[in-house]
Amino acid sequence: MFESADLDHRADKARWAREEPVLREALLAAQFALSQRRHHAVLILIAGVDGAGKGETVHLLNEWMDPRHIRTWAFGEPSDEEAAQPPMWRYWRVLPPRGSVGIFFGSWYTAPILDRVLGDADAADLALQLAAIRRHEQMLADEGVLLLKFWFHLSKAQQKQRLKRLEADPATRWRVTREDWRRFRRYEDFREVSAHVLRETSTGHAPWMVVPGADHRFRSLMVGQAVLDGLRAAALPPAPEASLPPPLAPSTQLLDGMDLGRRLTRGRYEKQLERLQGELNLISRSKRFRRRSLVAVFEGWDAAGKGSAIRRITAALDARFYKITPVAAPTEEERAQPYLWRFWRQLPRRGEVAIFDRSWYGRVLVERVEGFCAPADWMRAYGEINDFEQQLADNGAVIAKFWLQISPEEQHRRFLERQDTPFKRFKLTEEDWRNRAKRRAYEEAVCEMVDRCSTDVAPWTLVEAEDKPFARIRILRTLVERLEEAL
Amino acid sequence: MFESADLDHRADKARWAREEPVLREALLAAQFALSQRRHHAVLILIAGVDGAGKGETVHLLNEWMDPRHIRTWAFGEPSDEEAAQPPMWRYWRVLPPRGSVGIFFGSWYTAPILDRVLGDADAADLALQLAAIRRHEQMLADEGVLLLKFWFHLSKAQQKQRLKRLEADPATRWRVTREDWRRFRRYEDFREVSAHVLRETSTGHAPWMVVPGADHRFRSLMVGQAVLDGLRAAALPPAPEASLPPPLAPSTQLLDGMDLGRRLTRGRYEKQLERLQGELNLISRSKRFRRRSLVAVFEGWDAAGKGSAIRRITAALDARFYKITPVAAPTEEERAQPYLWRFWRQLPRRGEVAIFDRSWYGRVLVERVEGFCAPADWMRAYGEINDFEQQLADNGAVIAKFWLQISPEEQHRRFLERQDTPFKRFKLTEEDWRNRAKRRAYEEAVCEMVDRCSTDVAPWTLVEAEDKPFARIRILRTLVERLEEAL
Repeated sequence: MFESADLDHRADKARWAREEPVLREALLAAQFALSQRRHHAVLILIAGVDGAGKGETVHLLNEWMDPRHIRTWAFGEPSDEEAAQPPMWRYWRVLPPRGSVGIFFGSWYTAPILDRVLGDADAADLALQLAAIRRHEQMLADEGVLLLKFWFHLSKAQQKQRLKRLEADPATRWRVTREDWRRFRRYEDFREVSAHVLRETSTGHAPWMVVPGADHRFRSLMVGQAVLDGLRAAALPPAPEASLPPPLAPSTQLLDGMDLGRRLTRGRYEKQLERLQGELNLISRSKRFRRRSLVAVFEGWDAAGKGSAIRRITAALDARFYKITPVAAPTEEERAQPYLWRFWRQLPRRGEVAIFDRSWYGRVLVERVEGFCAPADWMRAYGEINDFEQQLADNGAVIAKFWLQISPEEQHRRFLERQDTPFKRFKLTEEDWRNRAKRRAYEEAVCEMVDRCSTDVAPWTLVEAEDKPFARIRILRTLVERLEEAL
Repeated sequence: MFESADLDHRADKARWAREEPVLREALLAAQFALSQRRHHAVLILIAGVDGAGKGETVHLLNEWMDPRHIRTWAFGEPSDEEAAQPPMWRYWRVLPPRGSVGIFFGSWYTAPILDRVLGDADAADLALQLAAIRRHEQMLADEGVLLLKFWFHLSKAQQKQRLKRLEADPATRWRVTREDWRRFRRYEDFREVSAHVLRETSTGHAPWMVVPGADHRFRSLMVGQAVLDGLRAAALPPAPEASLPPPLAPSTQLLDGMDLGRRLTRGRYEKQLERLQGELNLISRSKRFRRRSLVAVFEGWDAAGKGSAIRRITAALDARFYKITPVAAPTEEERAQPYLWRFWRQLPRRGEVAIFDRSWYGRVLVERVEGFCAPADWMRAYGEINDFEQQLADNGAVIAKFWLQISPEEQHRRFLERQDTPFKRFKLTEEDWRNRAKRRAYEEAVCEMVDRCSTDVAPWTLVEAEDKPFARIRILRTLVERLEEAL
């Protein structure tokens, strides 16, 4: 991987004087086009060996380009807040929106390489991490994020020379640490692992570019040119998705077969409600829960009773430790990001409960049925969602997902009731009536969602919600059971 | 994954009588369109639990469709020949060409599931196998193979009933083996692992479809409909590749910096030739080599001396154990397949030497420079080629790759010499002169190829070939060293 970059690459002053102003102007123009058209975001990853000019290059890019549409993020040791979340969280929170450029100084490659060279990760650990990275980057590419990955390289002799030169100058001596020399002594190990990582993660949509780092003019012109090519490509509209046939939807028997006649008497409801709320309260205040979190997802027909079921849960919780996220159509800011982005912002901290009133499953429900995204988009979403939930679970989240099922007749009855009740009228819109007409298509989407996204770590529960008391107890009991099982 | 399929699905006789003739006619029409347009191949994978109607469905598909354009392959225990090759070899050799349909009864999913449930593969082993499968299927999809993956499912009760019914009938009793019952006792384990495998490998371009297997009419209509959808999609031209910017080519210093003045005197050449050929002969006849193989790849400029260097190698080998594959433009048969297909057919057996005079690197050399494939295609090829070579290495192949470098002046001299020598004239074509004009573009492609595809298991060697004797000795010595190191 470093064969070419090992050699001596230089650009002389004349070339710099000739090319730099042209490049700079072209970069600004391309950045402007990107920001106007908003087809893609551009994410620049800066990685590589110490002393190879990473910082200088980031500095220069910021100098060259319009600061309104470029943001740089450096990732060192994770903050407390970051460490408490899944590892990808810190990158999601600062993902550049469409039309803009983000520079990540340090990235999801740092830890796997360090763990393999200095830590105790074996080859299989690394291979699994790289497979997860490939999936993550594939998702970003499919979601319109153009990745430009730069690896700054120095040969061993060049790195030694560079560190010595920095040390010799009192003005830069502080930049060379013991750690730098310690890593330098492991140069060959780092080189071997890095080359492997770069080859394994150089894909068609996100190839690595190796930058010879010794000569600042050469490396700056090279990175500038590659960024320019990337910005220009990113200003073009995305290619249309391949016209694959979506898989046949499963039958709707999962929903058809539900016994919606199940009811609970007032008396039994109130007794069980009190008991379960008490249990939930105890668990949520337990010591064991402080290291975990709960993610509860509610999907269901309009008027199926999601809101009132959620209130029966929150009634049992300390108001400081839960958060309800109602999910409506995405805002303009959210539409400029991959669809999962807005949910990464709402994850619970440790010891907290996050309740989603509708969720990321909108991708495979409303977006699928209404044609807001192409079949290829919602087909890949099942896997992406499973990956997402796995990350939450790996980080200690207990996940419970509920589909609240009511019959069309009951829904109609509730709609009319809303229409007739002044304080409920606002909840009913034209759209609700329209959605009813697409019931069959929604049912197919629901069954496929349950089939493809019921995992051990995040199972779906189908809730008979024709009788609200029955549904609420079913949900509360499931939550308590999931938590008791997990803790 | 099996939530819907667990339920009881039936199609009554009336539905069958109504739908089957329509479906059958539509399948034939769609198959005809596919075979005429030749945009894609369709590959149907049939997998799932015992007794769920896999065989019957394959039988029916063959009955319904035009036998000229459909082939079925069943994969049981690998044959001796198959076992001696990388695991994917048996699937490559029977991959359906564009315009046709292949049915794989058993597939690359069989072993990972069995190894995990009955063998000693742990979760990480399985995860790595699934990651490799995802890459393989991604490559197939990118190369125009539309995958339809069917998993035939039975609930535990259904499977028990099915096995008992088969046993009760003297005509079918033979179909139920002890092995079937042994697996049935592990039903839950198989179910859990299969569901995981299906979820992890359900991607946007190759999702699994779970077929409820209990009712033969229901499952037949379902599979028939899904195959019909697939055939229709496959008859359409592929979507254009996304317009990504190719990564900046590295500088051409790797080639520029070679010392082409290196020469060998006649006397030293002959002495060394004799010694190295002797060593190579010894190694190739050694006991250790019988379990390994050698893959030697030759690329280089026209007239760089590939052929004569190859003859110096084969002179040292037993004619029964080597094979030279000269690689020219692909034939019509080869163009109907993924670009790697024709090389999978030429792999050495154990104890054999396979020499490729030009190779799969044509994808990232001539096809790239001449624009025979889109940038997205050759960009993904680096990773695909690394995966391919890794599979050969995992199977025991020693791999050596040579680029023969000559100066444009020397090439010109040799061209003129060929023109003037009657028995060499046929080797020189118009195209050779044209290629010379694109030298710079080829040099960039060569340097990028060396950077991205020099791996531990398959390194590139750049050979100074201005002086033929020097080049031949360099190549022979490298081969001997690679072999001695590996054995």
